[in-house]
Amino acid sequence: MEKNHVIRIKCTDQKGLIAGIASILYRHEYNIMVMKEFVETETGQFFARLEIAGELHPSELEKELTQFLPASASVQIIPKQKKKIVLLVTKEYHCLGDLLVRHYFNELHADILAVIGNYQVLEPFTQKFNIPFHVVSHEGISKEAFESRILDTLDFYQPDYLVLAKFMRILSPEFVQRYQDRIINIHHSFLPAFIGANPYKKAFERGVKLIGATAHIVNNDLDEGPIITQQIIPVKHDDGLTDMIEAGHEIEKSVLAEALKLVLEDRVFVSGNKTIVFS
Amino acid sequence: MEKNHVIRIKCTDQKGLIAGIASILYRHEYNIMVMKEFVETETGQFFARLEIAGELHPSELEKELTQFLPASASVQIIPKQKKKIVLLVTKEYHCLGDLLVRHYFNELHADILAVIGNYQVLEPFTQKFNIPFHVVSHEGISKEAFESRILDTLDFYQPDYLVLAKFMRILSPEFVQRYQDRIINIHHSFLPAFIGANPYKKAFERGVKLIGATAHIVNNDLDEGPIITQQIIPVKHDDGLTDMIEAGHEIEKSVLAEALKLVLEDRVFVSGNKTIVFS
Amino acid sequence: MEKNHVIRIKCTDQKGLIAGIASILYRHEYNIMVMKEFVETETGQFFARLEIAGELHPSELEKELTQFLPASASVQIIPKQKKKIVLLVTKEYHCLGDLLVRHYFNELHADILAVIGNYQVLEPFTQKFNIPFHVVSHEGISKEAFESRILDTLDFYQPDYLVLAKFMRILSPEFVQRYQDRIINIHHSFLPAFIGANPYKKAFERGVKLIGATAHIVNNDLDEGPIITQQIIPVKHDDGLTDMIEAGHEIEKSVLAEALKLVLEDRVFVSGNKTIVFS
Amino acid sequence: MEKNHVIRIKCTDQKGLIAGIASILYRHEYNIMVMKEFVETETGQFFARLEIAGELHPSELEKELTQFLPASASVQIIPKQKKKIVLLVTKEYHCLGDLLVRHYFNELHADILAVIGNYQVLEPFTQKFNIPFHVVSHEGISKEAFESRILDTLDFYQPDYLVLAKFMRILSPEFVQRYQDRIINIHHSFLPAFIGANPYKKAFERGVKLIGATAHIVNNDLDEGPIITQQIIPVKHDDGLTDMIEAGHEIEKSVLAEALKLVLEDRVFVSGNKTIVFS
Repeated sequence: MEKNHVIRIKCTDQKGLIAGIASILYRHEYNIMVMKEFVETETGQFFARLEIAGELHPSELEKELTQFLPASASVQIIPKQKKKIVLLVTKEYHCLGDLLVRHYFNELHADILAVIGNYQVLEPFTQKFNIPFHVVSHEGISKEAFESRILDTLDFYQPDYLVLAKFMRILSPEFVQRYQDRIINIHHSFLPAFIGANPYKKAFERGVKLIGATAHIVNNDLDEGPIITQQIIPVKHDDGLTDMIEAGHEIEKSVLAEALKLVLEDRVFVSGNKTIVFS
Repeated sequence: MEKNHVIRIKCTDQKGLIAGIASILYRHEYNIMVMKEFVETETGQFFARLEIAGELHPSELEKELTQFLPASASVQIIPKQKKKIVLLVTKEYHCLGDLLVRHYFNELHADILAVIGNYQVLEPFTQKFNIPFHVVSHEGISKEAFESRILDTLDFYQPDYLVLAKFMRILSPEFVQRYQDRIINIHHSFLPAFIGANPYKKAFERGVKLIGATAHIVNNDLDEGPIITQQIIPVKHDDGLTDMIEAGHEIEKSVLAEALKLVLEDRVFVSGNKTIVFS
Repeated sequence: MEKNHVIRIKCTDQKGLIAGIASILYRHEYNIMVMKEFVETETGQFFARLEIAGELHPSELEKELTQFLPASASVQIIPKQKKKIVLLVTKEYHCLGDLLVRHYFNELHADILAVIGNYQVLEPFTQKFNIPFHVVSHEGISKEAFESRILDTLDFYQPDYLVLAKFMRILSPEFVQRYQDRIINIHHSFLPAFIGANPYKKAFERGVKLIGATAHIVNNDLDEGPIITQQIIPVKHDDGLTDMIEAGHEIEKSVLAEALKLVLEDRVFVSGNKTIVFS
Repeated sequence: MEKNHVIRIKCTDQKGLIAGIASILYRHEYNIMVMKEFVETETGQFFARLEIAGELHPSELEKELTQFLPASASVQIIPKQKKKIVLLVTKEYHCLGDLLVRHYFNELHADILAVIGNYQVLEPFTQKFNIPFHVVSHEGISKEAFESRILDTLDFYQPDYLVLAKFMRILSPEFVQRYQDRIINIHHSFLPAFIGANPYKKAFERGVKLIGATAHIVNNDLDEGPIITQQIIPVKHDDGLTDMIEAGHEIEKSVLAEALKLVLEDRVFVSGNKTIVFS
């Protein structure tokens, strides 16, 4: 039997939730392969993620769960299938390269529908993998116009998620709102250290002994969204700025791929400025 | 409300286990603070650990759970209170020192009832902490007699767990059987590499670039019991054998403390030669 | 032959430094066991640390090296012997406990002459190890008076280094200047993230997935001194604030011990707000 | 001024080596950018790696150094230029993909002249990058014939190094001898644990909590050559064999790239079954 659906539940906590949810699934003879839940004390919210197997009628099940759960509950029943994503890039290739290779060999739990770049430089590389590359330059036009062109392209592809694979432009709140909780970014520092531009330069000048990379969900504040995962790599006094950037690239691509896997497998919940990650 | 009991369940997997268990607890109006479960595909076994809060009648609850669960089920209902442990040591102080300090400051989830050493060297240090130290020498007597004396001392203390905090004698199967799944050892290598004596020397001669430490439950085969947790630390070509031993001590005490915390919080299940760890 | 002296050199970089230094040592028939050097591009400074063996006349050698090196050179010839340190603590025991155990078993490359605490709480523990404990309360007196009393105590002991083993008072620039580059602090965050008070609370609220600890040399700006070493430990969404503090303690004591070892072996140079660490 | 040559020296240790070497370089007015050396106590061997800048006459310098150094000395003066490498692969793509992307973007300190595979499966991918792919099947022919065909191909390309990027055939001692200390392999375990076939299966069955990957230089004994670098990644009880293999791939490609960088920058010396790595 395949683990063929993921159920995601978010609601106010109360007694009997696990018993109630599990009983509904049992009545339908679904097999619960994995069930993970968490109660966030600060907010009183209950989060659960289940993997279930069995012949499933999603709408019926959703109705039944919704009837049982508190009024404000959010219930998602998601078939185990590939998500659709679009990548946004600027000039750096390392995250893009990593994702395109994974995609080519069917390792990514997603179809990369297209790559959008604000420069042309990564087009030839992308096209090797038969992925459409759209150049949307930010030069000579307003931010609004720039974002509007990107949104038009996205409208065509209707992706589930946007992945900022070293996209070096700050997105407006209006843009972000259109893809609420669906934009994944990689920031090249151990957030919240070195927010903003040139984190490696700042890290070098500060003389840190570890550098970090952070994958997070984008919200309205620059580099301030909910963190999905972080990695670090040690540096030494004889690592110059270039060495630190090179070392950083290694963890940037690794942490982005790790975060993306978690998101694409529906393991990440957002709660305020935090994530719950059922790994 | 306090999380005041841990429930541990191990049984053959079947549909409806989570629903059934959760419903029993709900009927009694216990609050499930945390519930984690795992089905081991290879053995078809279901493992669960719950933290529950509420006025509890353990024997009644155990009876009810046992009636619901498959015949072979093991059910443990454990009050959240400190375990009793005895430490066995030889001459090395670093793990002992770490545990005694944690114990003194009430950080360890256990009472250290006594320390047994096959040398006298660690007695003065132990006595600073007002912990009884029993010297049981292995010299000039048979292994059987040696172990018999240790067992006599243990009989007096009736500990829940034995902790081999760098105890350098191999215990007989008969001894181990008396404390089945209740002896925690620290092996100073990344098991299964460098089984047996002098792992650092072997690691040094092999020219490894990482050295490891492994905390495991002792079974009949030397260094072969179920692994609880492992840590590593990098070494370089200019680390001599002494440097490697020193570096190793850092992770030995850390990994033993980590494993002990997991065991003392009833988070570790044994399945054959593996552990399930609900962290 | 023992590695019995460390030579530390800092001067403006120029061609021929290594040849010149090594030739002087060779002429005296000293054996260079280890020689490490570094040129900091940004400042044009040359740093070197040598371990040498042989019958040595330090003052003669120093004179000869100074004559050869550029005018501004700093030359230190340090016998390989234990440093003298004094610890400053507040209420938290974990770093103190770790250092006292290491000291007791002669693992620390230093003699702990005394512990100064602004509370009495750690006195009984310290006295187990026959180390004098001086209570210097900050309550009801001015900062100046408080620091003056500490300085009086230090004057008596004349330590080489002060170790702030979770000392929770901020030292004034005047105090710091008295022990320029000789005060080692542990800050319980991954600096420069979460500078100042309550870093764990800030980290918890930010939802980070790694927490850090930083050992650094104290200068006039709070949490801003040259970093010696940093460590991190992963945390998850179900780690509450208390869990994060507990996890942090593990790396705090580890990173402080690591940094202290580096400092006590004369491996750390300060250059502006950075360190050069010849590990 | 560019750091334009690397000097590598290996010889019997004796007093005055650093002084002598540095003085020769100073006399020629070369600037020593970096100098690292190491004396291996067990063998009495001295190893040094220097990066120097200046107008250089390699043959003259080599002659002078050789005259100064002990009779058995090995001296290499290597211009800072890209090495030539050939990759050997079987069916797994992750290391190949990583290296081809790095190569394409000019990040690898080497030219990949060709890829040789014993299956055809990775040919289309390789050709996207305009790298020749040679299928040399091992099926239906003797090992000798198989290796002979590979050697013929290699003879054409004359690479500096062979990189076994998940090449799943064991090479004969005769083959290895032809490329003494010039074959880099990635073994998918934390050597010396899980030598030989199916290391992930063995690791899964053993219930380890960390899995490793090891990049090493190939010698005559299977998985027994000098280790260049190792990495680990944590696994949990709910990671099945497939999850462990997936996790392992992440560190396999990372550790191979790291090792390759070290080798290609002439930082790795072999001494018996160990490496000295001047990082």
